[in-house]
Amino acid sequence: MTLPALPSIPWEERPADCSTVVWRYSANPIIPRDLIPSSNSIFNSAVVPFQGKFAGVFRCDDKQREMNLNRGFSPDGIHWQLDHEPINWIYDDPELSHFQYRYDPRVVWIDDRFYITWCNGYHGPTIGIGYTFDFEQFHFLENALLPFNRNGVLFPRQINGEYIMFSRPSDNGHTPFGDIYLSRSPDLIHWGKHRFVMGVRGGWESTKVGAGPVPIETPEGWLMFYHGVLTSCNGFVYSFGAALLDLEQPWKVIYRGTSYLLSPQTYYECVGDVPNVAFPCATLYDTPSGRISIYYGCADTVTSLAFCRMDEVMAFLKENK
Amino acid sequence: MTLPALPSIPWEERPADCSTVVWRYSANPIIPRDLIPSSNSIFNSAVVPFQGKFAGVFRCDDKQREMNLNRGFSPDGIHWQLDHEPINWIYDDPELSHFQYRYDPRVVWIDDRFYITWCNGYHGPTIGIGYTFDFEQFHFLENALLPFNRNGVLFPRQINGEYIMFSRPSDNGHTPFGDIYLSRSPDLIHWGKHRFVMGVRGGWESTKVGAGPVPIETPEGWLMFYHGVLTSCNGFVYSFGAALLDLEQPWKVIYRGTSYLLSPQTYYECVGDVPNVAFPCATLYDTPSGRISIYYGCADTVTSLAFCRMDEVMAFLKENK
Amino acid sequence: MTLPALPSIPWEERPADCSTVVWRYSANPIIPRDLIPSSNSIFNSAVVPFQGKFAGVFRCDDKQREMNLNRGFSPDGIHWQLDHEPINWIYDDPELSHFQYRYDPRVVWIDDRFYITWCNGYHGPTIGIGYTFDFEQFHFLENALLPFNRNGVLFPRQINGEYIMFSRPSDNGHTPFGDIYLSRSPDLIHWGKHRFVMGVRGGWESTKVGAGPVPIETPEGWLMFYHGVLTSCNGFVYSFGAALLDLEQPWKVIYRGTSYLLSPQTYYECVGDVPNVAFPCATLYDTPSGRISIYYGCADTVTSLAFCRMDEVMAFLKENK
Amino acid sequence: MTLPALPSIPWEERPADCSTVVWRYSANPIIPRDLIPSSNSIFNSAVVPFQGKFAGVFRCDDKQREMNLNRGFSPDGIHWQLDHEPINWIYDDPELSHFQYRYDPRVVWIDDRFYITWCNGYHGPTIGIGYTFDFEQFHFLENALLPFNRNGVLFPRQINGEYIMFSRPSDNGHTPFGDIYLSRSPDLIHWGKHRFVMGVRGGWESTKVGAGPVPIETPEGWLMFYHGVLTSCNGFVYSFGAALLDLEQPWKVIYRGTSYLLSPQTYYECVGDVPNVAFPCATLYDTPSGRISIYYGCADTVTSLAFCRMDEVMAFLKENK
Amino acid sequence: MTLPALPSIPWEERPADCSTVVWRYSANPIIPRDLIPSSNSIFNSAVVPFQGKFAGVFRCDDKQREMNLNRGFSPDGIHWQLDHEPINWIYDDPELSHFQYRYDPRVVWIDDRFYITWCNGYHGPTIGIGYTFDFEQFHFLENALLPFNRNGVLFPRQINGEYIMFSRPSDNGHTPFGDIYLSRSPDLIHWGKHRFVMGVRGGWESTKVGAGPVPIETPEGWLMFYHGVLTSCNGFVYSFGAALLDLEQPWKVIYRGTSYLLSPQTYYECVGDVPNVAFPCATLYDTPSGRISIYYGCADTVTSLAFCRMDEVMAFLKENK
Amino acid sequence: MTLPALPSIPWEERPADCSTVVWRYSANPIIPRDLIPSSNSIFNSAVVPFQGKFAGVFRCDDKQREMNLNRGFSPDGIHWQLDHEPINWIYDDPELSHFQYRYDPRVVWIDDRFYITWCNGYHGPTIGIGYTFDFEQFHFLENALLPFNRNGVLFPRQINGEYIMFSRPSDNGHTPFGDIYLSRSPDLIHWGKHRFVMGVRGGWESTKVGAGPVPIETPEGWLMFYHGVLTSCNGFVYSFGAALLDLEQPWKVIYRGTSYLLSPQTYYECVGDVPNVAFPCATLYDTPSGRISIYYGCADTVTSLAFCRMDEVMAFLKENK
Repeated sequence: MTLPALPSIPWEERPADCSTVVWRYSANPIIPRDLIPSSNSIFNSAVVPFQGKFAGVFRCDDKQREMNLNRGFSPDGIHWQLDHEPINWIYDDPELSHFQYRYDPRVVWIDDRFYITWCNGYHGPTIGIGYTFDFEQFHFLENALLPFNRNGVLFPRQINGEYIMFSRPSDNGHTPFGDIYLSRSPDLIHWGKHRFVMGVRGGWESTKVGAGPVPIETPEGWLMFYHGVLTSCNGFVYSFGAALLDLEQPWKVIYRGTSYLLSPQTYYECVGDVPNVAFPCATLYDTPSGRISIYYGCADTVTSLAFCRMDEVMAFLKENK
Repeated sequence: MTLPALPSIPWEERPADCSTVVWRYSANPIIPRDLIPSSNSIFNSAVVPFQGKFAGVFRCDDKQREMNLNRGFSPDGIHWQLDHEPINWIYDDPELSHFQYRYDPRVVWIDDRFYITWCNGYHGPTIGIGYTFDFEQFHFLENALLPFNRNGVLFPRQINGEYIMFSRPSDNGHTPFGDIYLSRSPDLIHWGKHRFVMGVRGGWESTKVGAGPVPIETPEGWLMFYHGVLTSCNGFVYSFGAALLDLEQPWKVIYRGTSYLLSPQTYYECVGDVPNVAFPCATLYDTPSGRISIYYGCADTVTSLAFCRMDEVMAFLKENK
Repeated sequence: MTLPALPSIPWEERPADCSTVVWRYSANPIIPRDLIPSSNSIFNSAVVPFQGKFAGVFRCDDKQREMNLNRGFSPDGIHWQLDHEPINWIYDDPELSHFQYRYDPRVVWIDDRFYITWCNGYHGPTIGIGYTFDFEQFHFLENALLPFNRNGVLFPRQINGEYIMFSRPSDNGHTPFGDIYLSRSPDLIHWGKHRFVMGVRGGWESTKVGAGPVPIETPEGWLMFYHGVLTSCNGFVYSFGAALLDLEQPWKVIYRGTSYLLSPQTYYECVGDVPNVAFPCATLYDTPSGRISIYYGCADTVTSLAFCRMDEVMAFLKENK
Repeated sequence: MTLPALPSIPWEERPADCSTVVWRYSANPIIPRDLIPSSNSIFNSAVVPFQGKFAGVFRCDDKQREMNLNRGFSPDGIHWQLDHEPINWIYDDPELSHFQYRYDPRVVWIDDRFYITWCNGYHGPTIGIGYTFDFEQFHFLENALLPFNRNGVLFPRQINGEYIMFSRPSDNGHTPFGDIYLSRSPDLIHWGKHRFVMGVRGGWESTKVGAGPVPIETPEGWLMFYHGVLTSCNGFVYSFGAALLDLEQPWKVIYRGTSYLLSPQTYYECVGDVPNVAFPCATLYDTPSGRISIYYGCADTVTSLAFCRMDEVMAFLKENK
Repeated sequence: MTLPALPSIPWEERPADCSTVVWRYSANPIIPRDLIPSSNSIFNSAVVPFQGKFAGVFRCDDKQREMNLNRGFSPDGIHWQLDHEPINWIYDDPELSHFQYRYDPRVVWIDDRFYITWCNGYHGPTIGIGYTFDFEQFHFLENALLPFNRNGVLFPRQINGEYIMFSRPSDNGHTPFGDIYLSRSPDLIHWGKHRFVMGVRGGWESTKVGAGPVPIETPEGWLMFYHGVLTSCNGFVYSFGAALLDLEQPWKVIYRGTSYLLSPQTYYECVGDVPNVAFPCATLYDTPSGRISIYYGCADTVTSLAFCRMDEVMAFLKENK
Repeated sequence: MTLPALPSIPWEERPADCSTVVWRYSANPIIPRDLIPSSNSIFNSAVVPFQGKFAGVFRCDDKQREMNLNRGFSPDGIHWQLDHEPINWIYDDPELSHFQYRYDPRVVWIDDRFYITWCNGYHGPTIGIGYTFDFEQFHFLENALLPFNRNGVLFPRQINGEYIMFSRPSDNGHTPFGDIYLSRSPDLIHWGKHRFVMGVRGGWESTKVGAGPVPIETPEGWLMFYHGVLTSCNGFVYSFGAALLDLEQPWKVIYRGTSYLLSPQTYYECVGDVPNVAFPCATLYDTPSGRISIYYGCADTVTSLAFCRMDEVMAFLKENK
């Protein structure tokens, strides 16, 4: 599959005094916690190119601290207008329409439409799948998996005739464990042939790991940014790193970076509703230039941008395997 | 579907001084912990009619306390001969063949063969599905679900063109929670359209519930025996009760008994590797007479029999709803 | 206050080979778990002399494992007839009538009637107080204390114009801590002037302690039997001992036995719904002879009797202080 | 009861760019952690009008991190002078005088004097009640309740001849649960007729709730500001909201705001000894103008002011019920 | 070193219907819980040949449930007379003489005297070392290690000029982890050169392992019986197995049996103060005949005997490695 | 022993508006988290005078969040150059060379060389001891103690012919307990004669305490700075205080300050990888002037300096005992 060029993605060159593979946008956070009147916080959100501009599905926790998904549009990927009301899903089965919570969306174009996956409350957290053709009407398809699960992320195309989805089996609380698995489906409704992809290691990813943005197809494999969690005596610390997976058997890990690419170090990453969180949910990738923009949630409060280049990430993976 | 007559099931009439719906076999336990030389315990096992006699798949924990499944045969359902070695599964995908543990099997005839489900160790407990035509060769199909899951129980026929399976999402430990869900599949490999069936209530089933034997089809609905767990200050207590589910929409509960049918009260149920456990995994049902034999594990150590009559169980459900 | 003679209390002399201060009745348990058809277990119950015979309020957990209180009568204190249905309380305030659970009753004659205290479910466990004149009509008075509390035990008379009650502040679970406090009231409804009586010590009473039967007035002080709990790696162990409290300032401990008087050692104390529990809730005391009969629950399953003599208990307290 | 006018309360109008019902004082925090030489932190404190100016009882944790109460005076409610030594209580019963800890005071004028309630260490946290006529001599009355309890708040007048107090039964640690109850007393010493007022809900108040300032009487009911706690993976987050209770039966909730009114979002609320805490303990209310000043502790470190108007709070409650 | 013949060790041949490597004595338990008047339980104790008969140091928990060590003698190793009072240790440093608790002794002859090691309470559990020449006077040497430690077991001779001791670092509670380490000393007082010997594996030894009796020197290596613990949903299960260690570098494991040799299965092993415990603390070994008698504690309540033969244990180790 | 004058230690006088015994350096932190390219954070590190300048061993966590020790030099004790690679230890026993983690070093000159102690990963945290003559070659000696231990700190000279070391027995996690002990050794390899020094108290040091820098010998005793930990509902808070120990029997505490000397209050102490940590690991002391420079880690992220004067610390200890 050839990925389209996206020359208009938000971008800022690496600062002169910075030598890390990933660097932050200087005007972070791009979305403040109170962008819309009802919001307590806006973070862990997903962005896609749409009609020459950008559209997205945003986690907006309101002032009840209820978690829900709001639609947004942006001309440049940096300045966003978000609906003041959450997305109103169209359900076929009314049993599934009862609202518990929705959070941490990802959006991906597959075949002929945008699919959205998110953590959906149905007797506990699981992976809801929905779709939209136009960012106007949003259809709920089904819960792909049984509770308890989080971080469901679809691949942007079928492999060997099957849809592929990452997920992270969880428990019904704050989950002090978590590995990345992959499931396969003929129809995005029934899932099976589950395979273990990768689990925790030491250091920054010693408590749990979970898939982040939709993986990016490259000639060498699927590039997956993912978050890892360390448990200090004062709680979880969420950083993110990268791995490269086999193109045809994506449960096989080719490279996995030993170091994180970004950890919470700025005020807006360290101070907020959940201190010390950097949580990526989307990328924009301009193939010709190799530029990648990463959208990540900060401190479960605001949304920020970071940048990197494909060739440097690949070099990082090969050097830090 | 008309269930066949099974006049030869093990049976003993209710003792004169007993007034409960379910009563114990007087020669319990029928399978001692050391029936085979390697076994530490034999319990939570599944039995089916087979070629005019009985066959079964038995949880045999060995003296390493490793959990595995052994085949057994019996002329009368009471006296059993078990293989000294575990079942040797035939795997298509070698990734799945690595042994972690296998336990708590159920066996059911569907279409043209016997399907076995059990708790299968694949990066944590999940539901393995396999089949045999002849109790000679056993084929592993796939793990139906992602970890962490237990108590996967197949329905004995398709409903509306789909296979149906109960399961109980769990965590990776002793799981202090657990509700019964149901999933649907076109092929026994891919599962979706998950629905919540029933959760915990107070008293004997206040910590978790899980499906027990393969549900029995009756004109009024699916009869499900299930276990419930209460947490005392000294640990879990496993009892079992019953519920009746809608024939076509089996996630809808028609009746659910408020009381347990049997709780651990005898020496062999109260003393053993795990005190205070009565855990049913199989029934034999003789439709014409309404007699039901229940196989249940005791104290995670031995296997016992209990008996009841269909009409009395149905009356119990209607009176104790 | 002069306690009446009670020559008819159940009694059996100390066996020849026994040298302990407290000894068990040879026909224990006196009340089996299934004395009434609906009961799962009958234990932790309270008995008083009544009209020349004996009456009592019994904790009867039914087969839903719901906890409730049933009335009972006995000609000899050993053979009991219990109502098959729980006591139907008369409530003035309907808000308080919603049933959650009732357990571990104590009964005491004060002034002109029998008062019953028990652990009453009102948004968590607290101390319910009710009364009866005749063991026919039972009136609910009020919840004496806020949740979370257990083991409320009234003194048999006022001291300095105030009613006195022991209780043990708890949490909303199995409570791994617990000390005995005392509260005072002008009217049995409003309670205050709370004082700490005694807390945990090492060994058999290292996790929590709680008042048992209604304290017995003696010339030297109030004799209190109480339970103590030790936490082994396999759960709680409930034993009981004794202490002597100041007559006028009963929050002052005069003597406190260092050893337990009875710990769970028999089959019926060690095996049951909660292994290793001996929990006293009532005594009968014949002042002239000094004989004391102790009713205690065993393994949260059945009810038993033990015996001792006042002079020997007093000597024990003085020697083991 | 007619509340007096208090035109001199501290006040600052809502900023132009602010649309929330409650807004912060621009010079927050008004009391720094080191206002007195011995203090580690000063927060969760109570303020009343006194002799045309303002007086208060302040939680001052010293550099041992011992928690105690200090007296303070202010001409304007913003600039405070605090005693360098804690209040020296006058005790009738020396048993109660042993200092463990005192924290989170509330002060209220009832009848003829100021009553102070606080979390008092007596074998665990409970509610101490004391009083002063003149802010010179402070008398300790009694512990109103048994341990474990916190957030005891008196109503400013009797209702139906009884004093009323909120409290929140707790455990002996950081208490991951907590609902608001109410108790009644003829004499402020003996308490009974306890009623459940309101418990946790989802979101910002999903872990526990507790009464904050003394409730304000309005024609429509008692206005109660209260704190609610959410548990993130990195600890508790304390926000506050409001509810309206029935004037005569104040355990009946008329309105309860679904959203918080203020959550920790500023540096001084998010960074400190306990990150992410906003905890109100007192209000000043000028009836004629409807202006309300709220004193709240920030990050368990400093004290701040926030403002709102009665009519807007009432409208909020009616719109967000 | 040549071990002496001990033809008089207690012995009973393997029953005809038994095929296990280790078998129980038919008259178990040999020491009841109440052998002496003060004892609640007697278990986890150590026995040595002494002056042609047998002597021992016994863990006797009294009726306060305080843990201490009592001396005992036996003509045949089966029938024991125990002192009614605990051993009175001679201390050089009074700081160490304050009694907290003493339990789980081992006794070994080294050089010229009997050394005793036990779990000694000194600000938490650690390993006390003492000695006696004559079982009359007992000298306390020092605490060999810092808290928190348990299961200190000395080797019967020096290796390369140093004393050797097993131990199991622990925590200050019931310790849900535990591996076997080894330390070396020039003088039995200062210990260093600590080496990891072996840790937990699956099944019966998945929670913790700890050294049991003093290791037996054989030409092929040091034979170590050790206990392993499995955590069921209802608590710990203690079984025991064996391993063979290198003669000169005893931290190197030559063989380690995969199965347990004995797990709690009898009434006296399954029912008692701590259900499901079999815990060996001593062996007697008759070299010429290869007979080994194993003393083990049962359910933390009584003491029992089991038997095996050296050649069969060695064969077991080689077959089950 | 006469301590040498160190006039060149880093120093800044107490600010005019500051009245505390310990004050911060105005240019804190002196070492940023990214001083070397590979570092995630640099903190909890040790500094000594070396060849007229300063040398040190620094805890440098890399971007895998692996913990290791790097060498550093400074002309003034404030501006540091650190090696980009960790110290490469010379091991005699290859078993000990397997890297798990190394952190929280202390450095001290004894006899003829610099000894380094640190928390060394050997099947869990324990105390590694190494030495260097020249800060070029670093030799690993042995693990002084068994796991689980942390905060091993050597005294700068022998006492009564033995080396002395503080340590804090721990568990294998974040350890919610911890007291300071002392061990003695003839050779720095074998350790014994362990004595309890001091444990937790209330307030700022209620969860655990641990030795900090190498103790300073004064005519009145050993001055020990140590950290204490308080557990808030949002995690641990690390402050530090001081105590004075007996010169000859340093397990005897002469004075112990009741208040902390410094608690986390600045941004760099409160915000970082572990919020709210101030953790001292080294001092420089100029005897003639009484000036003490304290190096302490901040928020487990950066390294800072604080200052005090010996006479004021001694006065503080005497006034706050």
